[in-house]
Amino acid sequence: MAFTRLCQYSSTILCATGGLACICVVMAIVMFPGDPKVNIRREDVTLTDVEDYVIKNINPDNIRQTLRYLTTGTHLGGTEQELDMARYIGSRWQQQGLDQVHFVPYQVLLSYPSPTIPNLIKILDSAGQVVWVSAAKQKPLYAPEEASPDIPFTFIGYSAPANVTGDVVYVYYGREEDFDFVAASGVDISGKIVLARYGAIFRSNIVEMAEARGGIGVILYSDPEDYAPEGSNFVYPHSYYMPPSAAPFGTIKLLDGDPLTPYYPATESAFRIPEDEAPLPKIPAQCISYEDAWQILSRMGGPAAPEKWQGSLNVTYNIGPGLRESGWSLNLDVNNNNTMTTTYNVVGVMTGQEEPDRYVVLGNHYDAWLFGGLDPNSGTAAMLELSRVFTQLRNETGWRPRRSLVFCAWGAEEYGTVGSVEWTEQFAKQLSDRTVAYLNVDMAIEGNYTLRTKSTPLLTDVVFESAKKIANPDPLELEAGRKSVYDTWVVRRPDPNEPGLPLMQFIGSGSDYKGFQHNIGIPCMDTRYTHDNSTIGEPQYHTLYETFALASEIYDKGFHYHTAVAAMWGDLAVVLSESKVLPFSLVKYSNFISKAQDDIIERFGPLINSQNISLEHFTNAGKAINESVTNFNKALEYLDLKSALAVRRVNDQLMMFERAFIDPRGLPGRPEYNHVITAPSKNDAYSGTAFAGLIDTLSAIEEAQEEHRNDLWRTFAHHLAAVTHLLNTAAKVLTDDLW
Amino acid sequence: MAFTRLCQYSSTILCATGGLACICVVMAIVMFPGDPKVNIRREDVTLTDVEDYVIKNINPDNIRQTLRYLTTGTHLGGTEQELDMARYIGSRWQQQGLDQVHFVPYQVLLSYPSPTIPNLIKILDSAGQVVWVSAAKQKPLYAPEEASPDIPFTFIGYSAPANVTGDVVYVYYGREEDFDFVAASGVDISGKIVLARYGAIFRSNIVEMAEARGGIGVILYSDPEDYAPEGSNFVYPHSYYMPPSAAPFGTIKLLDGDPLTPYYPATESAFRIPEDEAPLPKIPAQCISYEDAWQILSRMGGPAAPEKWQGSLNVTYNIGPGLRESGWSLNLDVNNNNTMTTTYNVVGVMTGQEEPDRYVVLGNHYDAWLFGGLDPNSGTAAMLELSRVFTQLRNETGWRPRRSLVFCAWGAEEYGTVGSVEWTEQFAKQLSDRTVAYLNVDMAIEGNYTLRTKSTPLLTDVVFESAKKIANPDPLELEAGRKSVYDTWVVRRPDPNEPGLPLMQFIGSGSDYKGFQHNIGIPCMDTRYTHDNSTIGEPQYHTLYETFALASEIYDKGFHYHTAVAAMWGDLAVVLSESKVLPFSLVKYSNFISKAQDDIIERFGPLINSQNISLEHFTNAGKAINESVTNFNKALEYLDLKSALAVRRVNDQLMMFERAFIDPRGLPGRPEYNHVITAPSKNDAYSGTAFAGLIDTLSAIEEAQEEHRNDLWRTFAHHLAAVTHLLNTAAKVLTDDLW
Repeated sequence: MAFTRLCQYSSTILCATGGLACICVVMAIVMFPGDPKVNIRREDVTLTDVEDYVIKNINPDNIRQTLRYLTTGTHLGGTEQELDMARYIGSRWQQQGLDQVHFVPYQVLLSYPSPTIPNLIKILDSAGQVVWVSAAKQKPLYAPEEASPDIPFTFIGYSAPANVTGDVVYVYYGREEDFDFVAASGVDISGKIVLARYGAIFRSNIVEMAEARGGIGVILYSDPEDYAPEGSNFVYPHSYYMPPSAAPFGTIKLLDGDPLTPYYPATESAFRIPEDEAPLPKIPAQCISYEDAWQILSRMGGPAAPEKWQGSLNVTYNIGPGLRESGWSLNLDVNNNNTMTTTYNVVGVMTGQEEPDRYVVLGNHYDAWLFGGLDPNSGTAAMLELSRVFTQLRNETGWRPRRSLVFCAWGAEEYGTVGSVEWTEQFAKQLSDRTVAYLNVDMAIEGNYTLRTKSTPLLTDVVFESAKKIANPDPLELEAGRKSVYDTWVVRRPDPNEPGLPLMQFIGSGSDYKGFQHNIGIPCMDTRYTHDNSTIGEPQYHTLYETFALASEIYDKGFHYHTAVAAMWGDLAVVLSESKVLPFSLVKYSNFISKAQDDIIERFGPLINSQNISLEHFTNAGKAINESVTNFNKALEYLDLKSALAVRRVNDQLMMFERAFIDPRGLPGRPEYNHVITAPSKNDAYSGTAFAGLIDTLSAIEEAQEEHRNDLWRTFAHHLAAVTHLLNTAAKVLTDDLW
Repeated sequence: MAFTRLCQYSSTILCATGGLACICVVMAIVMFPGDPKVNIRREDVTLTDVEDYVIKNINPDNIRQTLRYLTTGTHLGGTEQELDMARYIGSRWQQQGLDQVHFVPYQVLLSYPSPTIPNLIKILDSAGQVVWVSAAKQKPLYAPEEASPDIPFTFIGYSAPANVTGDVVYVYYGREEDFDFVAASGVDISGKIVLARYGAIFRSNIVEMAEARGGIGVILYSDPEDYAPEGSNFVYPHSYYMPPSAAPFGTIKLLDGDPLTPYYPATESAFRIPEDEAPLPKIPAQCISYEDAWQILSRMGGPAAPEKWQGSLNVTYNIGPGLRESGWSLNLDVNNNNTMTTTYNVVGVMTGQEEPDRYVVLGNHYDAWLFGGLDPNSGTAAMLELSRVFTQLRNETGWRPRRSLVFCAWGAEEYGTVGSVEWTEQFAKQLSDRTVAYLNVDMAIEGNYTLRTKSTPLLTDVVFESAKKIANPDPLELEAGRKSVYDTWVVRRPDPNEPGLPLMQFIGSGSDYKGFQHNIGIPCMDTRYTHDNSTIGEPQYHTLYETFALASEIYDKGFHYHTAVAAMWGDLAVVLSESKVLPFSLVKYSNFISKAQDDIIERFGPLINSQNISLEHFTNAGKAINESVTNFNKALEYLDLKSALAVRRVNDQLMMFERAFIDPRGLPGRPEYNHVITAPSKNDAYSGTAFAGLIDTLSAIEEAQEEHRNDLWRTFAHHLAAVTHLLNTAAKVLTDDLW
């Protein structure tokens, strides 16, 4: 029965059931302030009805208007502007009538540029005179707000404040192999300032490696080769390519969450470690535009960098060290401050009807380095429209989801998922006991080419099914007969290993699902519309030019892409909160594990065989999961769907499956990661590989000198046993067996 | 409606409901092999009916017969005899018709005496000739089985095998203050053999301290002052006092569980640390009888020990070092072996009707140092009778508990709760998600004087209520008008702080609840009938004389005390498995926490105030629990008991309350304990005190030299914040709040 029909006579037929459930829930703590007088009978509405309603009622104009509001100013984490934005989101949710809206504060250490003294890079001649100085801010190019006096000086979050002078060395993308190449070329990084390109690895690791090698400072820029492939005339605002004056901000903290309160929430009562023990760099780092990078690169001496290292700036890229002119040097002056401040998460709840104590959590951060035209406001604008649609549905019909929907707007994500990690630390127990899934959308769009989704294997099937339901926002694709988001996805981003399926990426890290997936073991999904392969990443990402104009004039004039992502997000929320039995892909997960095990054996089998270490228990545990999944699914056919407790039992087993992979002791040497399957690898070469603890240890063994191998083999054997234990746990979690 | 009446026409009225529930559960994994054709309708039977049935149907003669069987031979952990006993228990449960019976093996490192070479202590004269040698075994005194050739040589579990010769030093109870006194007397322990009395602290710690001070061996004995107060004529078999030839065995491993697989289960696939890294002593230790101790003490030289240190052997106790005769020495020769072997837990399940995935676990170990007449077989005999009664009830009426009953017989407890800890490590996730309570009875009786019970505050009220329902097994007490077990308890073991209530002891450690309570946070209870204060502990504990005769002829001729404990155990199982809403004492727990907080402030307030550390958040968190408990209980009044999911939600919140106090990172310096409230103190002076991590750190600060205090204060502040966080978590766990 469709909702439109239902609503007409809902007031007469629906009174009876609503009363009892309401009294019970209201008295047992929860209040439904916005509750209508009537409730629909759940038997009268199908899952498809709700899905259709949510998908159809998302209004692109609402997303546009919200995005316009969200991007009028900057709202850096922990600032008054961030708090204003939190208040705005909270009041929107209150107006929409979510049952609960709360602000959850954390006292955290964030990093800011000086309000008065810019961070500058200077070229000094042999007399110490300034030959050239970098831009203090990015140039306004198009949107009026780019010229706002509130724009902070260009900076890198958590850079150490320092003024250093020295020779400069070009290290390409600053990967381990790049540093090794530089060293092999006879250039010592020690005492030098490193110039690295963004794009291949997380910027924190570039700075970490530079510091470890004795570097005294780091300069980061984006080469036009990677971000402006069609030359400097076809860039923002004429296209979405990167203009010469863009300098992408970012954090260089090494661990997620507040740096001073590892593992515990940064509440008022938290214990804070001394700042010098925090995972923060000790050297200064600064981002610059490629027009400024040219100023340095064009003056550098030393041997030419390899062909591959040459970018598309019109110079020969030399490695250095130093500038060609004798006695000239580079000065890097960073005036950032690490500051204790408060950041807020905004949490809004639509309480579930049957299972208020089961949560489907939707989240995105709302802080931005600058305007956040895409990151994160495209996602936040979508989320605010989604919550509106859900409350509209409730207001019109009295419907409520079976399970609670929890909407979260995270603070200070840009500094390293600070708000969300602190929250998952604070509420770890409840979230672990009660959360069905966490659905993250950071940028709803960073392009209009195809969907890009990461998830735990458990959610792969529901994501595919949702993507099939969402109309294709691309008119040309529609013309080509590709009706759904899925249809474009499978063509433009196919899975190389699974012909006929779109690529579902490994969940990895890098946004607010980190605490959920990797510490608690809550099934997570992260999705967005993305760009094609002509650039590495979205070119205006974290720059001044990530504006409303970029979103509304260049990427998504009709806001159809925003709408498609919002619809899919909403549909997933409906499916996960409404389905009587959780629609988790146990078979996908089991196959994923088997394949990852095979990969390890194929890649490292001979190495492991050189030791007295058997993989038999490990592979048997994979088989045990496979068998347990088969039995579980068979038993599911006979499940008495009318027995609330029988259904709950099965759902609890499903919900706890992902949790089974959590080792409270963490991965080897990485206590900040607990999920033994999905934790990202330390080694970028293995990103997207499961069992990071095993893989990383094995690749360390390959590279280690003989005398260090014994310790690493012990680490490997120990972790292998832990992983095997947890795989067996996962197999058992689907049963009542305690043997 | 009583069961007797119900049974008559149950077959006609009860068919209808059984069918559906059964199909569902059978198909969804669980089988009910012993299921009768009929099931009672749950509405027709009250909680009291079930309680009455269980209490009334426990048959003392059955307990007697089982105890007789269990105590005919020895069954040391990890031996063929232990396995025989496991098979016996398993087959009994199968015969009784439990739904599932399983053997759960662990490969563990245990310790045995040599089968051929006894552990001996010799006094050597100056020419090295043997003047005296200790008994290899304890003398048979009464029961025929005491003369069995299967009795192992007297030994201490995990003593290092070694042959050492040196001077002997008497250290009283071997507490830290005793060692300090000896040192202050100018006697250096280094290079000496230590002679210590059992009774004040855990024997492992005596050996640990001796080893840390350079001692080369330890001899442990029980002084008749503590265990034979009425002289050597009124001892076993004439009384339950200790005879001169008794030498109590025991373990001296420092941590619980298998020594080679800390934190992970000792399955086949486990990683095992090298034995020399295990928490095992590096020096030999041996237990001896007090008649043998006299041989040493009567020859010792050096200054007389203080008056308090004098025991009731007819000599002057000297401190030493060494013997009076010049050139004489003591030789300690221990020939134990640490051996990898397999121990088994036996797990039997009666599957719950409505909530098969909620467990009430009952357990006791079944290994014994020797015959185990009390420890553990009095408990095991009671458990086997209890399971019989439950299956009889099910067979007669079709009744099943609402939640599953899980009966556990643990292996190798005597070696340091090996079987149970490995099991809680293996099934930690499921147990944490699903277990309502763990009810431990190790010895059902160690006396016939009064009940002695330890529990989490959460179970205090249900234990009191149960104890009131159990008829007093003591005829003299009955005559005195004390009808119930409770009535004697409140008189003979009153709570000094709560006039009118019996003493409920702090849960502490020392039996198989360790992994449940202290690592997972499952509410635990441990009960037994105990002795009066004339001895420190049960005098035959762990000796050859802990026989069936001791139980059946001296302590409990009619097996009424065994029966009373079994009945109470069973009643608690009924109440916890049958009650629709879990009968947990949130108010008791909240008050307990407040009082413990007040105690800390009273005892350490001035010390803490000397630092810049506020206790405000800590005490506020206690108040938050109080408030949350009040709100929770208020809401409970309006709970819709007909809504299965509403009831389940409340029960899950109750079940998770104790879990909230678990810190996965463990206590400061003690990762083997996770419960921040109930973990036992490192310091015996504070045993029975809550918040051991805080208390131990504060008392260490008091004792520390100035230069070490800063680190300790940091530890304190850090842990205080963790505790505060977990108290706040507990307050929140009773709600759906995520803010």
